Amino acid sequence: MKVPILRLKDILLTSIQIDLTDEDALEFQSDVLRNINETEAKGIVIDITALDVVDSYMARMLNETATMVQILGADVVICGMQPSVALTLVEMGRELIDVKTALNLEQGFEMIQHITENRGR
Amino acid sequence: MKVPILRLKDILLTSIQIDLTDEDALEFQSDVLRNINETEAKGIVIDITALDVVDSYMARMLNETATMVQILGADVVICGMQPSVALTLVEMGRELIDVKTALNLEQGFEMIQHITENRGR
Repeated sequence: MKVPILRLKDILLTSIQIDLTDEDALEFQSDVLRNINETEAKGIVIDITALDVVDSYMARMLNETATMVQILGADVVICGMQPSVALTLVEMGRELIDVKTALNLEQGFEMIQHITENRGR
Repeated sequence: MKVPILRLKDILLTSIQIDLTDEDALEFQSDVLRNINETEAKGIVIDITALDVVDSYMARMLNETATMVQILGADVVICGMQPSVALTLVEMGRELIDVKTALNLEQGFEMIQHITENRGR
C-alpha cells in the first residue's frame, strides 16, 4: 500500500489515508525522503486526517521523518491531527517535537509556503 | 485500492498512481462525485501521470467523470497525461472530449484556479 505523494510547485503534498503497518510506515518514510531528493522540493505537508490512532511507533516514525526531512534541507508541516490523537500523544508523552503542525491541509499548505519563502532571511 | 482525494481551498486534487481495475475506476468515479458534493469544491484536478496505459474503458470513465463533475457544477482538469497515452487515445479515436488538460499537477492547479475564479464572468 503506497501513500501517494503529489508535487505542487516546490511543495510536496502527501496524505496518509489508511492505517499503516510498521512496514508501510518505513516505506512511506523512505518514499518521502527519495521524493524530496528527486524533486528538490523545499517542503512537504503530511496530512494525517485519516489516522484515528497514532501509536508510539507511528509517533516516532513521524518525528524521525520530520527530522530527516529537515536534515535534507527541506521543511515539514504535519496537518489534520485528530483531537483524540493529540490527546493520546500528550498523555503518552509522545508529543511531536520540533514538528510544525496545522489544522488542515489548506492551512498546512499556506504555512509551508510561508516557511519556505522566508527561509534564510 | 482507494485513490486519495486531497482538498486544498476550493479545489480537490487527486492522483491516480496505479492502474485501476474497472471496479476501482467506478469506485473512484463515485468517490470524486461524493467528495465534490460534500466539500462543495469548485473544481478538481485529476492527475494521471502514473497511468502508462489508458484503455477505452478508462478513457470513457474519465470522460464521463468529467461530464458528471461539470453537471454537478464544478470544473475539472486532467493533468499529467503520458505522451504514449495521448498517442494511443487519438489513434483509438478516444480523445477526451470537452475535458481541459494540463501538462502537470502544477499547471493543472493553476488552470483550475483560473477557471473557477473566472466562472460566471
